Order: sequence, then structure tokens, then C-alpha cells
Amino acid sequence: MTDATPLNRFSVEPLARMTRRLAAVAAGRAEPDLVLTGARVLSTYSERILTEREIRIAGGRIAAVLPAGSYRGAAPVRDVAGGLIAPGLVDPHLHIESSMVTACAYAEAALINGTTTIVCDSHEIGNVLDRDGVAWMLEDAREAPLNIYLTVPSTVPATSPTIETAGGDLTPEKIAALFDAWPEALGLGEKMDFVAVAEGDPRAHAIIAAALERGRPVSGHIYGRGFVAAYAASGVTDTHEAIDRDIADDLLEAGLWIFLRGGPPTTPWHSLPAAIGTITDYGAAWKRVCACTDDRDADDLLAFGLDWVVREALRMGIPKPAAWAMGSLHPATRYGLDGEIGGLGGGRRADLVLLDDDLVPQATWYGGELVVEDRKPTPRLEAALARPYRYPAPAYATVRLPDPLPALVPPLPTSPCTVNAIRTTLPGIELVHERVALRSGPDWAATLSAHDLCHVAVVERHGRGGGVAHGLLSAFGLRRGAVASSVGHDSHNLIVAGLNEADMRVAVAALAEAQGGVCVVEDGTVVAMVKLPVAGLLSDERVGVVAEAMRGLKAAWAEAGCAIPYMGFNLIPLSVIPQIRITDKGLVLVPEMRQVPLFEAA
Amino acid sequence: MTDATPLNRFSVEPLARMTRRLAAVAAGRAEPDLVLTGARVLSTYSERILTEREIRIAGGRIAAVLPAGSYRGAAPVRDVAGGLIAPGLVDPHLHIESSMVTACAYAEAALINGTTTIVCDSHEIGNVLDRDGVAWMLEDAREAPLNIYLTVPSTVPATSPTIETAGGDLTPEKIAALFDAWPEALGLGEKMDFVAVAEGDPRAHAIIAAALERGRPVSGHIYGRGFVAAYAASGVTDTHEAIDRDIADDLLEAGLWIFLRGGPPTTPWHSLPAAIGTITDYGAAWKRVCACTDDRDADDLLAFGLDWVVREALRMGIPKPAAWAMGSLHPATRYGLDGEIGGLGGGRRADLVLLDDDLVPQATWYGGELVVEDRKPTPRLEAALARPYRYPAPAYATVRLPDPLPALVPPLPTSPCTVNAIRTTLPGIELVHERVALRSGPDWAATLSAHDLCHVAVVERHGRGGGVAHGLLSAFGLRRGAVASSVGHDSHNLIVAGLNEADMRVAVAALAEAQGGVCVVEDGTVVAMVKLPVAGLLSDERVGVVAEAMRGLKAAWAEAGCAIPYMGFNLIPLSVIPQIRITDKGLVLVPEMRQVPLFEAA
Repeated sequence: MTDATPLNRFSVEPLARMTRRLAAVAAGRAEPDLVLTGARVLSTYSERILTEREIRIAGGRIAAVLPAGSYRGAAPVRDVAGGLIAPGLVDPHLHIESSMVTACAYAEAALINGTTTIVCDSHEIGNVLDRDGVAWMLEDAREAPLNIYLTVPSTVPATSPTIETAGGDLTPEKIAALFDAWPEALGLGEKMDFVAVAEGDPRAHAIIAAALERGRPVSGHIYGRGFVAAYAASGVTDTHEAIDRDIADDLLEAGLWIFLRGGPPTTPWHSLPAAIGTITDYGAAWKRVCACTDDRDADDLLAFGLDWVVREALRMGIPKPAAWAMGSLHPATRYGLDGEIGGLGGGRRADLVLLDDDLVPQATWYGGELVVEDRKPTPRLEAALARPYRYPAPAYATVRLPDPLPALVPPLPTSPCTVNAIRTTLPGIELVHERVALRSGPDWAATLSAHDLCHVAVVERHGRGGGVAHGLLSAFGLRRGAVASSVGHDSHNLIVAGLNEADMRVAVAALAEAQGGVCVVEDGTVVAMVKLPVAGLLSDERVGVVAEAMRGLKAAWAEAGCAIPYMGFNLIPLSVIPQIRITDKGLVLVPEMRQVPLFEAA
Repeated sequence: MTDATPLNRFSVEPLARMTRRLAAVAAGRAEPDLVLTGARVLSTYSERILTEREIRIAGGRIAAVLPAGSYRGAAPVRDVAGGLIAPGLVDPHLHIESSMVTACAYAEAALINGTTTIVCDSHEIGNVLDRDGVAWMLEDAREAPLNIYLTVPSTVPATSPTIETAGGDLTPEKIAALFDAWPEALGLGEKMDFVAVAEGDPRAHAIIAAALERGRPVSGHIYGRGFVAAYAASGVTDTHEAIDRDIADDLLEAGLWIFLRGGPPTTPWHSLPAAIGTITDYGAAWKRVCACTDDRDADDLLAFGLDWVVREALRMGIPKPAAWAMGSLHPATRYGLDGEIGGLGGGRRADLVLLDDDLVPQATWYGGELVVEDRKPTPRLEAALARPYRYPAPAYATVRLPDPLPALVPPLPTSPCTVNAIRTTLPGIELVHERVALRSGPDWAATLSAHDLCHVAVVERHGRGGGVAHGLLSAFGLRRGAVASSVGHDSHNLIVAGLNEADMRVAVAALAEAQGGVCVVEDGTVVAMVKLPVAGLLSDERVGVVAEAMRGLKAAWAEAGCAIPYMGFNLIPLSVIPQIRITDKGLVLVPEMRQVPLFEAA
């Protein structure tokens, strides 16, 4: 195996073609490629730590785990000196696009953190580029040095053309075709329109049926205990949105697998500590509980990987082997992959992690090859990362704004009125509907200042003839200039907030010029920017480069005074999360799914 | 729903076509068909008992489990007065043929015992009738009022044409075709030739590959800790043959699901008490542990159902909800069916059992219809049982003996010699290879008596030009006459044991006349018989009728003095179990797979 040999999911042959060789190696009739000896083994099957084991690896798979010292042949033997060997982690739900990198680049961060398999829901790129975007990301995934499976985006657009303009429209027919064309499409991605599902919306149920008819499970996204019964009855069998122990308990009993989502503790992604109470407070068994990451920006990806989420579960009282099983065997079982990954059984892929006693990864083997050591890619992985998939040209031309660009701020009201304002709150997911009695000052600057407001606008960017919607953010904290992003969940129209239209226009122009990104503008100058030219969502750089750029952006973002982090900002147009959102079609009250004007008569 | 409506697995529509209705019922917008209220609920998901619940059922599925008293509509409501509702049991491994009844008839006993789904491995009928037999049993299964899935017989014949003559020869190509034709073929059945698998036999691995290539799991059958590693490396992912805690532990760590097999405590089928030590003594997690029955004769089927096995697990220290989960959710999960059965989640089939506090079934609902009450079939079930599947004519003509029938006993040796005798031992699975120094008396009768031996012969019955093999049983205890069976695992040639050839011939003639069965003969007269005309394996009567006949047979069997039970007797030709077996080709030493003569020079 030279560094020039491709390294991806297909580098290891299917088990069906390897059973005779593996049996021979296990029985001692044939030589392994590699032996790891002197290890303790974290068993995700029995939830115990076994001592003094030896792992025989052949053709990228585990031939056998036997007592240490039992191998006496000529193959390379690595003594791991009592280290703890565990199966690579399996992330059952995430969006690669949130990390602002391609699948090939994502693999680097995942492997450093001991994650060797991910199930991604590429609904961001689906919202921008429809079926083509999903297919291109699947090609990207096939070339990545990581096992990347797909849950087919289920809710593109997240709502309907009345509510917002998206670049994609994944009909039941297109979804069925994706299942039929891509065997790695394991299930249906998070069905975000949970209100529509609960209410029996025909298109939502036709999409669910396309998955169920093919024996594929359906992933969920749900808020509100009142919706649980109807949502479960609709065939949904997992969720990563259990935000407290009560709804987690309801969902578990309704038959859903629970994915405990962990993330940076200052962000709303860290719902694990509350939801895990279904186990730690209410005594539920953990066999149907998994860990997941959902969304990570490039910067947080390294510091808050799935390994970190597993350690959080450990910290909350789950025993060590069980916590690791939540991040490996349980997700594998949920997706019917436990014969292939998730444990150290015979015949499984040799996707292994060497851990210290705090479950921090020290080294990673992917398909039997050492890819990470001392938290750095090995030359073998470096070589693979140097040959990433390149997206085709149309993926680089997705920011198509109205021309000429309409006004980004509304006319100043001339008489007292009530504003349907969007109040940002920490940690950043929920947006409160605040009715502000507005009395205009001499100009917008004075008016905003007097009411602790700032402008927000959503600009349709799919070249579909949409326009600009105006809103007002309350308590956003912006001290000067403007901030903007081409990542505006889920339709990914441009979102821009600012204290004056000039800076807002500079920000929008910068994003148009780069064909996507996130930026901070002050006094007419872009002071920080991360360029995301692929679908306006992804960089084509290595993850470390993007992470570094993100750190600069975050510093400028904080410096500008923004009260919620960048990732929360991106959710401002996400019209399926309470209470109020703004899309390119205007303000939406969720969950009533009712549009309201910005200004109402006082 | 009248009694004339078919009642089978297809009576409940696929979930894909029912989600809108179920969501409407769960949300209270539509009426359920039935509500069970005031129940405690055994949750297999969280392993807790929940109180005061109400189950809304529509179209044969669970729409929702909600707090008791929340339903106020006009649908029928049954107050179960604090009873315990649990999901129907799921038996992950059994052979219908062992119960000597058809699939349609098996359903009655299963439902009485709270089992609503079974995964059967029809390798007995496959050994007699090849692919056609398997297909006919699948048709039988489709008409049964029970969810019957298949693991495709993997090892037909159990060994090879050198070792024995079978009626079937399921090649890798035929197995692949069965998978492709029958969606209910969930996996590959127990790969019994574990020595061949471990040694890399090409046909055995080609059969495994046919399953793995189609994403189907492979079931196992293995004895001996030394074979575990190579067997697991060959892609096998479950076993029901873990006979003690040590091999159970090895197999669990090698990545196999463990099916704890329970059965009548006097038989070798009750390996659960020893194997469960992996949990109770060695502390393994039970999430990958299931319960199963494997083989039950028609008589034992009612008394020792899967519910009884689950209660044995409870008695051995497994908590009540976990023990029930081992018999329901865990097998469902192993086969990727946990979205359909195994728990009381939304959208699942309303296959429910009302239990008392000792986990004894009081009533069973199958697809939302009450089928058993007070351990008796309801009129609805009676009507379904009155219209069973009928096997086609060739299934009734499978006992085709050599004509003329050769001698059933060998010539009496004229000089001292050593006999490779088969010593029967309790509980009846293992047969010990005993080398007996034989000094012939004046005739066979005196010789047998002096050495505590009796004749045994295996008669080829598939009309394939085979013959008769002679052997001698040691310590079998037969006091007079002969016993015979057309169920002689796995090739199902006739097996007959006796103290004189005349009675042995009467027994064989009786089986030929009935086209299969089991009988006891005394002084030239058949004193007890169960007729099994379908493939020489199955009766076409209701299970109660066959059970009654079996009780008569067992009494005569014991009266005749047989030291091992009928079911152990049937295993005498099973050339994959230690230590010595006899097939129509002669004596076989297992696991060396070496044939030996009956008599050797002293």
C-alpha cells in the first residue's frame, strides 16, 4: 500500500469477498497485515473493558481479537502498551455543509477525533443545488478517506414556495430516485416540517412513503411534546432534537432512537446535558441512545468532535464503554451497519481508535491503515487529502442576486406603529417575537438606537426572481457596520444585518463577488471574511485553513458586538423553529406558519 | 372485519400507506378502531413499566400510546384494568418442522403464547424437497395468521454427498435466487457446517457471500471455543448454540448476537441457564442478547413457548422489562424490524399481549385483532385456522425407500472385534463414541443383551439409490421392539432402532405407508404413531391434534425404555454435532468428519 493508493470507503473490499481470507488469518493459516498487541479493548458489545488483547488485521478488516501474545508470525506487530483500543466513532446525524468544507476535507477533522463513519444529511446543498448538489456531495463523499453515508434530504425546501424561495425542490419522485441510485442513501434525512407531518400534509407523507417503501428509516426533527405522538405515528424513528429529558422520554417511548446532540456549551447545540436526563434521572435504558454532532463550524469541528460529545455523556454519568457505544455501536445498529462497523467483532472494518483513559483519541486506523498519530495526519492521510474531489463549475456559481439590488432597508415609518421584531436570545436558536411600539426618530440611525434595533434583510440569491425582505432585530447588539452570510438556513438566501444600508450593501457585494461566504463590514470595509464559493456554503480549502479563517471571523464578529454567534445568526431565516423568522418572503410566525408584516398600525 | 376476512401478515397494510391516517388518529383528528385503556405498559425501549396508559389502534397498527383516559370518542374502548400490555414476542430462530405442523398450524400455538412474529429456518423441508419445499413453506407462512419471516436454509445438505444422501442440495445459486424472490427472506439460516466454514470451504463461503452481497445477515451454529474467531471472521453474526457462559462470552465479543435458547429443562435445548452467565456472572450488557426456542415438538410447543423462555431469563435474574425485550425488541432489532415490531412505538403493528405480573400471556392481539383470550383462540382466529394452506401433492410423496429393502441389521461378527458404538447420553444432544470389545453370543439378541446394545439403522428415503447403514447404540435402554422416525436430522432419512429386525421392518413399513411419521413397535404391532405425511416431517392437522398424538407417542416411547427422548433420537444422524453420528452412508466421527466402519478388528 503506497501513499498513492486511493484511500476511501472502497479501499477495503466488501466482506462478502474476504471471508475466506479472514477465516484463514483468524485460524492462523494465513498471515495478517498488521497486529496490534498488548491492548485493552473497549467492547461496545458487552460494555466492558477487556485486558491483554491482540487484534489481527487483514485486508483492512478485523480478522480476530485474541489474547495478547498469541500471534507469533512475521507480520508487523505494534505493541500499544496497554492502551485502550475502541471502534471508530459513528456519527449518526450531521450536516457536512455546516463545517464549511467539502466531504474530503471534513474527513481530516473527523479522523483526528476518532470518527471513522458519518451519516450526513446534505440538505443544505440540496436547498441550493437540488438533486445535483446532493449527487455531487455524494461523489465528494465517495472519494473521502472516511465512511460517509447519506440520509436523503427530506425537506427541501424547509417549508413551501409561499414562505420562502429555495434553490432546490426535492419532490417525492426525486427522493425516490436518489434512494434507487445511491446505495449509501441509508435513510430519509430529518423531516423538518414536523407540523406539516403531524397535520398530514400529502407531500410530506409522500416523501416519508418513498423511504418506507424501500425499507429505509426516517429521521426526525421535532420540537414540542404535543407533536410527538402524531410524528411517531408517521413513521419517524429517530431524533436529534430532544432538548430536555421530558421530550426525550416521550420520544424514546414513542419508538424513536434518541441522538443526544452535543456541541460547544455556549451554543444551543449542546442539548445533551438536559436530554440525557431520560437515562440519568428517569432510568431509561440507553441501548437506543446515540450521540451526534449535527452542526459544527470548521473551527469548532476539531475541539468539539463526536469524541468530545461521548466524553460529555461520560461526564454526565454514563459508564465509559456505554458512552463510547452511544457514539459507535448504537448508531451503527440504528442504521443496520453493526455487522460492518461500531465494534471490534470479526469481519468488521478495522476502523480503530487508540484512546487514553479519558477517551481522548491518540491514534486512528482507517480500514487498517494508520491515518492519525499524535493528533496529526500521517503521510498516508496527507497524500489522500492532497487529492480531494473538485465540484463542477455550476457549484461555483450559485449567488445570483436580483439586479438591480432592491433597497435593503425599509422606508422609515412616518407615524407610530408596532414592529413585529425578532428578538435574539442566547444560546441562539430561539428567536422571540417581540412587538415593539416604534416611534420614528429623525432617521433610521436614531430610530434603531432608541429602540435597540438593527436592520436585517434576506436577499433571494438563487436567481429565481425573488426579492428582499426587511426585518428588525432586537437586542442583537451590533455596534457598527454590518454582518452577512450566504448560509441562511435552509434556503440559503443571503442574510445581512446592519446599522446602515451602505455597509449592508458592501457586505452583500462582497458575498456576491466571492460567490458565497460570511463577512463583517465596518465603515465600508470588509474587516473579516470566510469565502465559501462552493454552493455559497463550502470552502474548497483544507479544514485547518477554514478553521483559521473562522477564528478571525469570530473575533471580528464578537468585536462588532453581535449578541448571538454566527451559527445562530444563520438560523434567522429557518422557518421551522420558534418563534419568529424572516425569509426572502418576509416574516413568519412559527409554528402557526403565518406570515406577518414588519409594521402594523399601532 | 368479519371472520371471513383473511388474517395473515398482509392483513395490515404497509406503514408507508398508513402514515396519514395514523397521524390523524394520534392527533385526535380521526377515530381509532380500538382503544385499550387503563393499562400498564411494558416498554422494551426504555426497559421500564409505565403506568396508566392508553393505546389507540387503527388499521392494525399502533397510532399512539397516551395517558389513560385521554380518548373520549366513539370507538370501542376496552379497559384492561391495570393489566400489563407488552409487544408480541419475536422468536429469532426456530424450525417450524420440529413442531410437526404446518406454518398455519404453528401460528395457533405461537399466538396463545404471545408470540406474534417468528423467524424460521426451514432447512428440514429444504433437506427433503430442496428449493420447492422452502418455497411451499413460504407460501404456507404467507397464509398463516402470524408474521413469519425466513432465514434461508444455508447448509443443505448438512455435510456432503460423501457423508450422507439428502433430498435437497441448496447451492449458492439457489440460495441467491431464494433471496431475490422472497422479500421475507431476512437472512441466511444457521450455517451448520462450522468446521467447513472455519476451514475456508469454498461452497460454504460462496453461500455466505450470497447473503452478505445482498446485505442479509448470516446466522450461526457453532460448538467449540476454538472455532469462534474463524467463524466470526467469516461474517456470521448470531448464534443460538452458546451452551455455556464462556463460549457465549467469546461469541458476544466476536460480534455475534446471542440467542439464549430455552426449552424443556430435561432436554438439551435448555442452554439458557448456562449461557446467560455471560450477563449474570460476567457482567456483559444484554442489549445484544435475545431469547429463542429453536425446536419444539407439538406437545412442548404450548408448555414451553418463547414466553416461557423469557420467564426463565427473568428467573435467572434479568429484570422483567429487559427479559421481555430479549424476546421482542432485541430480535426485531437484530433483523432490522424494530420499526415494525418489538415495541409499542407509533406506527408499529398492533401485535400486543396482555400479561399478568408473572409475564404469563392472558390475551393476544394480532394486527389489532383479538385472536387469543383466556389461552383460547377467538372465533376470528378459529375462522382463520379453518382455512389453512395445503401443500401440493409432491410434498405428500417423499418416502421412497430402496426396493427391495436391504437388511436392517448387519451379519453377526464371527470373531471378536471392536464396535464403534454410539453411546446415548442425557440430555440427548451429545453422542459419545464408545469402542466396545464385542464377543458375539449365539445370536444378535444374546449379543445385544450382553453388551447393552441395540441396533440402529439409517435408511435412505429420497429415492436416490442410497441404501441402509448399520450401527449399534449403547445404553439406549430399549426394552423391546423398535422405534423409528422419518425425521432424522438433517437429511431426514429414516432412522430405526430395535432389538430385532422383524420389528424394525414393521416400523419402517409403517412409516413408508404413512409417508412419514414417528412410531413405536412391539411384537410386530405399531403401538403408537404420529403420522407426518407432508415431506415426512409435518402433519396437516391442527396443533392440538398433533400435540395429543405426541403425548401418546411419548408415553409409548418411555414405556419402551428409550433412554433419550424422541427429539434427541432424531439427532442421531446429525453429522455436525459431536462425537459420533450415523447417516445412510455409515458412521461419522465429528468434528474430524471421518467415516469409520462399524466393526474393526480387535
